[in-house]
Amino acid sequence: MSFDALIAKTRQALADDAARAHVVLSAQGTLVGVTEVDIRTGAHSFKADEPRSLGGGGVAANPMQYALASLGSCQAITYRIWAAHLGVTLHSVTVRVEGDLDLRSCYGVDDGARPGFTAIRVEVTVAGPESEERYADLAAAVDAHCPALDLFQNPVPVSRALHLADPAANPAS
Amino acid sequence: MSFDALIAKTRQALADDAARAHVVLSAQGTLVGVTEVDIRTGAHSFKADEPRSLGGGGVAANPMQYALASLGSCQAITYRIWAAHLGVTLHSVTVRVEGDLDLRSCYGVDDGARPGFTAIRVEVTVAGPESEERYADLAAAVDAHCPALDLFQNPVPVSRALHLADPAANPAS
Repeated sequence: MSFDALIAKTRQALADDAARAHVVLSAQGTLVGVTEVDIRTGAHSFKADEPRSLGGGGVAANPMQYALASLGSCQAITYRIWAAHLGVTLHSVTVRVEGDLDLRSCYGVDDGARPGFTAIRVEVTVAGPESEERYADLAAAVDAHCPALDLFQNPVPVSRALHLADPAANPAS
Repeated sequence: MSFDALIAKTRQALADDAARAHVVLSAQGTLVGVTEVDIRTGAHSFKADEPRSLGGGGVAANPMQYALASLGSCQAITYRIWAAHLGVTLHSVTVRVEGDLDLRSCYGVDDGARPGFTAIRVEVTVAGPESEERYADLAAAVDAHCPALDLFQNPVPVSRALHLADPAANPAS
């Protein structure tokens, strides 16, 4: 089945049964080094780490680089989905994302500073035979429906629970 | 230098010169398959992809799994930094993050649905010799200073630019 046909079939299945549209994703991170974290999500495993300049080993991207990677890849895939949906021919798409970060909050130097990104810049480059107007319409549709862009632009309710592991079950590690 | 000493030195350097605290991170994603995306950020390269059930190849985590991985790993590292800062002994920390997603918006079935996560649940498990109250204080400090948690809980201003690549410079690919 072509991707376009699969998109159409997926849309029909979600329209027929809204319960199928609700998915729960998860990820688990465990600190295994100074700042090195082993991550598992679905069938995939990878690491996060801070750079050496911040006391880490620099073995992998840091958490906020993963956040930017999430936005860049989500934009790229949403271009693919909406190009198929709207019948826009798209030869290539590259998304570059930049984020400004002030380290003072995270390190407890200035509680007035914002802990997370203070601004994000997204640069999308598309190639293909359609008019500029058609790609502008595609970009508008993508921005209205991109899951990661929504995460960046709007607040999400977060609940947090803290558990103290049973010391007997968790010998000093 | 120990991590605790490096954290103290980093704090002093950021307090002495706020300009050093401003960092710009970036990531770039290029669609290279049906939904497969090559990502580069800093010195690191990895992939994102959708699962086979959504028309992808399932070769890597999908963008929203990376967003959850960002939150889980950022929490874990912020526990490390603030345990050092507050003098709390921490033997281990594991952070599990779950997110609810409604696929109807992304696939254009229901514009009333939210594109991104509708709720996030964070479960933190710590081990160590301190009292429950001391770990609760640590958790509160982490949640007030964790960059990724701030991204999830608060809106970030995003600007987006769209470029149409010169077809002569980008032969049909």
